[in-house]
Amino acid sequence: MSKHLQKDLEHLHRSLLKLAGYVEDAVISATAALRNHDPDTAQSVIDGDNDIDRLENEIQDECLKILALHQPVAIDLRRISVVLMITTDLERIGDLAVGIAERAAVLARPPHVPIPDQIEAMTDRTLRMVRASLDAFVSGDPMAAARVIRADDEVDRDNDDIIRDLVAEMKQSPELVEPALSLFSAVRHLERIADHATNIAEDVIYLVNGEIVRHHPEAIRA
Amino acid sequence: MSKHLQKDLEHLHRSLLKLAGYVEDAVISATAALRNHDPDTAQSVIDGDNDIDRLENEIQDECLKILALHQPVAIDLRRISVVLMITTDLERIGDLAVGIAERAAVLARPPHVPIPDQIEAMTDRTLRMVRASLDAFVSGDPMAAARVIRADDEVDRDNDDIIRDLVAEMKQSPELVEPALSLFSAVRHLERIADHATNIAEDVIYLVNGEIVRHHPEAIRA
Repeated sequence: MSKHLQKDLEHLHRSLLKLAGYVEDAVISATAALRNHDPDTAQSVIDGDNDIDRLENEIQDECLKILALHQPVAIDLRRISVVLMITTDLERIGDLAVGIAERAAVLARPPHVPIPDQIEAMTDRTLRMVRASLDAFVSGDPMAAARVIRADDEVDRDNDDIIRDLVAEMKQSPELVEPALSLFSAVRHLERIADHATNIAEDVIYLVNGEIVRHHPEAIRA
Repeated sequence: MSKHLQKDLEHLHRSLLKLAGYVEDAVISATAALRNHDPDTAQSVIDGDNDIDRLENEIQDECLKILALHQPVAIDLRRISVVLMITTDLERIGDLAVGIAERAAVLARPPHVPIPDQIEAMTDRTLRMVRASLDAFVSGDPMAAARVIRADDEVDRDNDDIIRDLVAEMKQSPELVEPALSLFSAVRHLERIADHATNIAEDVIYLVNGEIVRHHPEAIRA
């Protein structure tokens, strides 16, 4: 690999990790806004999405420039296509954080539906998955990536538990249907954030092993 | 452009349109299963998702091979990056069709919640957007793409109308909370399919004009 290409790839990685940092902060703030009935924090997440979108566009441009300038092959080419895919996943996590923040803003208004404690545990698990998927990319560790994919089952269980409780609450208190529906959406968004972390982990395995495992989880679980 | 590259790009386009056909059929069947309380059609959509995922992987491989073999620049490079992005959107539309089919399978069991007529109109509008976004890609027509982006507002209105009615129904008939929640999810999935058609239209504008309009709808609406 030429030194010039190596330098450009390092810059690309830094840009990607910067994007990951923005997106992680957005998820942390959005879920905090939800738990604390805090409309100001919710609004800050909504306003901050422009920065995420701009950085996503910059990274896509950077990838295309590297492709055009260096015409990389084999692993370097795969690395850039993986950066493009991870960037898309991160941007969607950012959009989902905005979706949670929008629900948080609605839920900050009375009548307050109780926010289940389990959302905090589900948020922690989801954020750990996002962080671990990026760490697996940086270290090129397919075993760490496989652990992220397995962790998704736990988040799915959190999701199912919380939604079962929500359904019971809506049946018992019809006047809470609207806020409960907002909370339902927020929880589903969180669950989808974990799905995107799973996608990123699958991309890491593709990068390292050259095998596409997206949609083939059995290859990991076996 | 070399004849060889041109031939490979034509093959890539055919693969993409084949994927679009699969995905469109999945959306049509999933929404029909929903309206007709038909679990068999729902199951066929769920089973068919493997074909969509396999074709997505094949197209991604095809793109990387073209990049490695021809090292295209400028518009050809942009075309391949756009095919990659459209492929991702189509695959996600396929996933959303599976999500609708899963809800349709649940809703096929009693107690039957009435399926609002407006879902049919919303489905038609959404499918028109998906088709028109692909047509705009094939013809390289940014004006047609801009019309797709504007049409998303109508689907959003359908979504809001249907959900307002659903909320009223859940309040009135708590025993219908669970099926209504499945229907709520199905409608939200349909709304997200329209969002992906919007993404594809934005990619067409990027391809033709070289400007990224994702996240900058004001550039189109002005």
